[in-house]
Amino acid sequence: MERISVQTNVLKANQDMAAQNRQQFESDGTLVMNLMSAPGAGKTTLLEATIKALRGRYQLAVIEGDLQTDLDAQRIRALGVRSHQITTGTVCHLDARMVARALSDFPVKGLDLLVIENVGNLICPASYDLGESLRVILCSVAEGAEKPKKYPVIFNKADVVIVNKTDLAEASGVDLSELETNVREVNPGAIVFPVSCRSGEGFNAWIDWLSGAIESRNAINRLGSMVLTRS
Amino acid sequence: MERISVQTNVLKANQDMAAQNRQQFESDGTLVMNLMSAPGAGKTTLLEATIKALRGRYQLAVIEGDLQTDLDAQRIRALGVRSHQITTGTVCHLDARMVARALSDFPVKGLDLLVIENVGNLICPASYDLGESLRVILCSVAEGAEKPKKYPVIFNKADVVIVNKTDLAEASGVDLSELETNVREVNPGAIVFPVSCRSGEGFNAWIDWLSGAIESRNAINRLGSMVLTRS
Repeated sequence: MERISVQTNVLKANQDMAAQNRQQFESDGTLVMNLMSAPGAGKTTLLEATIKALRGRYQLAVIEGDLQTDLDAQRIRALGVRSHQITTGTVCHLDARMVARALSDFPVKGLDLLVIENVGNLICPASYDLGESLRVILCSVAEGAEKPKKYPVIFNKADVVIVNKTDLAEASGVDLSELETNVREVNPGAIVFPVSCRSGEGFNAWIDWLSGAIESRNAINRLGSMVLTRS
Repeated sequence: MERISVQTNVLKANQDMAAQNRQQFESDGTLVMNLMSAPGAGKTTLLEATIKALRGRYQLAVIEGDLQTDLDAQRIRALGVRSHQITTGTVCHLDARMVARALSDFPVKGLDLLVIENVGNLICPASYDLGESLRVILCSVAEGAEKPKKYPVIFNKADVVIVNKTDLAEASGVDLSELETNVREVNPGAIVFPVSCRSGEGFNAWIDWLSGAIESRNAINRLGSMVLTRS
């Protein structure tokens, strides 16, 4: 019981800090995405392709979470996009306080999109709200079709599920439609994008959807400043 | 600081329970393997192939750890091998107490090999000793070559690293020798087996090594009972 109450207190404190982050992001007018997956599902590769598709149109930045190394932040910077690396040591997820600390050195006001790439882990990040408005789960076809059933909490909380590495379906012996069915069973409301970041298959649908989400956020910002100007 | 001391106490309690499990396994004369990997690296598929190769020669059993479902335990039982499922709910790793509880319903005395398949997670299971004598880390080629650098703690603690899905190396654009170099950089003492559970490539080397480990354990058991008989 003691362990449970400590855990509850930690999560409550995180929720309070996430609410502060959310308020900050709201006042900055920035759309914030929390990108989560198992290790090696292809988060950074998806981000590289997404940045290449959007950097001409939008202001972007990335906060990277990893146990060790700043390899991912380097990959993002190589594309001319600002990136901040959080290294967690042995901590298996990002939390709202880590993100708040990062924001003090890494302002996001005026950005169209901030992506927070979480630590590679299909379990713990699900419990830690960072203040994001968009939760995206990436899973790799090579992980097998039954992953949504075995890790239901993180899939259930997703706004979007990207099924990556569709080019490996045949070689992996994985039935894509079975995987999609399993996603929808755990989370009937999720928007599902099957993509291959290597071949480009299905990628435009994701970019179109994300551009739409950024445009909606920006329309709300314009509406907000009109209201402020009038009052 | 409070959070750190709670974590330290949890790990200390786990270590004490793991020592009890280890003593039990020792007196039972059973070799115990803790098998860990990211979600979808192929732990259960490796186990199925390992069971098929060894079940004629040795007495085997499996304890399965998953957040949800007993899909993996069913797959093991379908091969005629005893299997016990631990479902952890939202807990991201097995701990020594969960294993001790499982053992009360699931005796392992007289077995040659007990495999404990941990929850799919490359981070948290590294911190929780279960009382095993053999730590095996499985990684999938499709996860990319840099995983050992990004998850060094779990790779560093491994006795054996199995690099699975070598048949996907080309399609994934992953350089196998770079992956092996990264494993050895983090853990120079690890024994590394590149295998494909799908094609069978490299699999016999793993089975030969594991058979040798079981034979060594059994030789120690015979020596122990000779000493006991003589005294």
